[in-house]
Amino acid sequence: MTAMNDRALANVNPALIEDLVDANRILYHLGVVDGFGHVSARHPEDPSRFIISRSMAPALVTASDLMAIHLDGRPVSEAAPTPYLERFIHGEIYRARPDVVAIVHSHSAAVIPFGVVPGATLKPVNHMSGFIGAGAPVFEIRDTAGTSSDMLVRTPELGQALARSLGPHNIVLMRGHGSTVIGFNLRQAVYRAVYAEANAKLQSEALRLGAPIYLTPGEAVESAKANDSQQDRAWNLWKRAIRQSGLS
Amino acid sequence: MTAMNDRALANVNPALIEDLVDANRILYHLGVVDGFGHVSARHPEDPSRFIISRSMAPALVTASDLMAIHLDGRPVSEAAPTPYLERFIHGEIYRARPDVVAIVHSHSAAVIPFGVVPGATLKPVNHMSGFIGAGAPVFEIRDTAGTSSDMLVRTPELGQALARSLGPHNIVLMRGHGSTVIGFNLRQAVYRAVYAEANAKLQSEALRLGAPIYLTPGEAVESAKANDSQQDRAWNLWKRAIRQSGLS
Amino acid sequence: MTAMNDRALANVNPALIEDLVDANRILYHLGVVDGFGHVSARHPEDPSRFIISRSMAPALVTASDLMAIHLDGRPVSEAAPTPYLERFIHGEIYRARPDVVAIVHSHSAAVIPFGVVPGATLKPVNHMSGFIGAGAPVFEIRDTAGTSSDMLVRTPELGQALARSLGPHNIVLMRGHGSTVIGFNLRQAVYRAVYAEANAKLQSEALRLGAPIYLTPGEAVESAKANDSQQDRAWNLWKRAIRQSGLS
Amino acid sequence: MTAMNDRALANVNPALIEDLVDANRILYHLGVVDGFGHVSARHPEDPSRFIISRSMAPALVTASDLMAIHLDGRPVSEAAPTPYLERFIHGEIYRARPDVVAIVHSHSAAVIPFGVVPGATLKPVNHMSGFIGAGAPVFEIRDTAGTSSDMLVRTPELGQALARSLGPHNIVLMRGHGSTVIGFNLRQAVYRAVYAEANAKLQSEALRLGAPIYLTPGEAVESAKANDSQQDRAWNLWKRAIRQSGLS
Repeated sequence: MTAMNDRALANVNPALIEDLVDANRILYHLGVVDGFGHVSARHPEDPSRFIISRSMAPALVTASDLMAIHLDGRPVSEAAPTPYLERFIHGEIYRARPDVVAIVHSHSAAVIPFGVVPGATLKPVNHMSGFIGAGAPVFEIRDTAGTSSDMLVRTPELGQALARSLGPHNIVLMRGHGSTVIGFNLRQAVYRAVYAEANAKLQSEALRLGAPIYLTPGEAVESAKANDSQQDRAWNLWKRAIRQSGLS
Repeated sequence: MTAMNDRALANVNPALIEDLVDANRILYHLGVVDGFGHVSARHPEDPSRFIISRSMAPALVTASDLMAIHLDGRPVSEAAPTPYLERFIHGEIYRARPDVVAIVHSHSAAVIPFGVVPGATLKPVNHMSGFIGAGAPVFEIRDTAGTSSDMLVRTPELGQALARSLGPHNIVLMRGHGSTVIGFNLRQAVYRAVYAEANAKLQSEALRLGAPIYLTPGEAVESAKANDSQQDRAWNLWKRAIRQSGLS
Repeated sequence: MTAMNDRALANVNPALIEDLVDANRILYHLGVVDGFGHVSARHPEDPSRFIISRSMAPALVTASDLMAIHLDGRPVSEAAPTPYLERFIHGEIYRARPDVVAIVHSHSAAVIPFGVVPGATLKPVNHMSGFIGAGAPVFEIRDTAGTSSDMLVRTPELGQALARSLGPHNIVLMRGHGSTVIGFNLRQAVYRAVYAEANAKLQSEALRLGAPIYLTPGEAVESAKANDSQQDRAWNLWKRAIRQSGLS
Repeated sequence: MTAMNDRALANVNPALIEDLVDANRILYHLGVVDGFGHVSARHPEDPSRFIISRSMAPALVTASDLMAIHLDGRPVSEAAPTPYLERFIHGEIYRARPDVVAIVHSHSAAVIPFGVVPGATLKPVNHMSGFIGAGAPVFEIRDTAGTSSDMLVRTPELGQALARSLGPHNIVLMRGHGSTVIGFNLRQAVYRAVYAEANAKLQSEALRLGAPIYLTPGEAVESAKANDSQQDRAWNLWKRAIRQSGLS
């Protein structure tokens, strides 16, 4: 593994660093992110910081590209590289949700339509997506930034507005942009980003056939629990896949 | 080939073991399973047992991961590894259907919508899918487990209910979950899992254009017979494909 | 290149043999055929024969698998291997259409829906598919084989009925089965099989948006001519692609 | 890098030559072009010329295949190889739009339906596609070439008509053919070709769910600016991808 550059990460468990690098590549390998999108983990020793790549394509991230950022969006180290413009997505959700340990922001394609059509709501079609619960909320950036913004969550205020839309949910769609999922551990956040996209495809197809039966709230909660207990089965597969494809 | 660990498999024909390992990887290679899903074969010497991987991603299965399980879901060997939570899908179908020799359970994406939309029925669009017959039945787990289950077939009772929904058919859809296909030999079960998914895509597209003409019951029976006689043509291709892609 | 086995092919130009082997692999590489489907060329010295693989998956075909067959479906050589059940597709079209030099039969997925929905007609959406002309005819096997056939064109009579449905067209859809395209040279037949599938996808998507403007008959004829003059541009790309992917 | 053949390119910055070769391969790798389509850059020292490959599949282009062409479509060098039939797309747009520095013409699949259905308009669904602005215009070749053309922009007059349809926009759809995007630098043109296709997929899916909210004109302008500042993030990823896949 490449050595780290950011001294603020010196005490972080190498296993977490490895998982975070792998998460970047897995999300690319599975089509959740392309050249854009990002994944972060809360700093395990200091909950007022999070760890994320510098501004670059996720597929190319190595340990040396990771950096620590304060919840307000300021890089921890003085000589820090250029951070993502939208790091406020991460910081403000970590601030508003002390239970959150990891976050994925992406433009995964099947999810986006559910964020731009009034009346369409992303709901869990099968047990793999129980974490979506009763339906994903949608963040409308116009409510905060007006009708001529560049659509990016590029300030603490916009990050806070996004966190309010997320509320107690595990996923929030972003109108005309993409979506953000949270996890109580890093692998769970990756799992959710992958299966949010899979569910959106299923739901879109099911809606063509008629009115789908969605999971009940009880089914959603229980199946999400069952899947959490199995999540390393997918992680181990994905890790092998990126090794095999030369992505790590 | 990796050596086997489960002594209860000592007398099994190595050709079957090889096919079962290949079946796991083929189903992954063709997108029928991802990190989840499983394939089994009835024990050729003892019809009260079946052979299946321990709980893990199908793409990673080797001969050393295979284990023997009794039809009631108890592992045969004392020192057995962790079995799949849903092994009751297999055991109870083998019990209810003495004619069945192999089973594939998957969450293949195009099939799922046909299981969650009341009134939609998976029917054979072309001759490759004659085995679907007059239309695939749907298993509603709520009828047995109530409205707050985790959706998993995790008990003998649920396996028995699934087997009743399957009845004399070759495939049963599982609402909010996936599907299960049976075969009178292992390669046939794999063929059916692959072409059930292909048929669901065809049918979904055809339904967009209008009211499709499906195979008649006679056409379904006769084309299924014709395909059975050709199934090794596909198997040999798929086996080469997994060898080439480094999956075996 | 592997040596040929069938002595009836001894005098065939090696360049044609190479193209025919490549055609098999290209059609697989581009998703036109899977384990099933076949491509043939009329024997350049003897128009009463055609050259095609023995019964096997197209992706695995080598020169040693090619065989010569009479137009009535009888293998030319006594010690011939097992031929395709549906060789009558080829023989009877070559007999009915002396202008035809190459034929591809496939189950390519996007085309099939247009063959099973009454009222849907495959028509050229853009200039790459001008060869489709005013719309593809559909062959209904029930008109000849009754309502309980195995859907296969397994007799000369069925091949003749298919040839009648094809008429003067370049493509004929086969209800509940797939499609067959003809070419005035081998590379053209491959080009047409590839772009028939591409056009079906375009048309299906366009129909979702509203009532598409199709090519006029004049546009279809002229754009087909223009594409014919460019067909080696695609062939050279495809040939490189199969070399690179280890398919040849 | 292969040496160049066209002496008219002797003074061109090697970095631009490398980017132009990469652009050809990236557009193929990402499915924007197949065997057909082309990308050009205006000559940096002489705005009355542009640089483009000779007539061949983009994936196979090397520096030795590049050639200089006058805006009226005449190759600059006497011993020039065969140019693309549709080089007038490039020349006439460069003439009509002095601000344009690079052009991509493709038949990318998701965009085509928006060009053949009256009333359907390609509009920006998310911030990655702000460059589409208030909606893409459509070029109807029949208005200039009549109803029996071969659909190709094969004359200066047709190129001029296309440039008029493009007007001040960044993209123009071509009915029954494909689309053309322009850029103020080469990487921007490639970015736009890639995300025009991505947006068409998003829009087509969103339209299935209901009436999408598109970007406002202000959001389109501002998000396009923000993306322009990030475009090398994608370029670096794509460049790595073609290196890894053996495409360069």
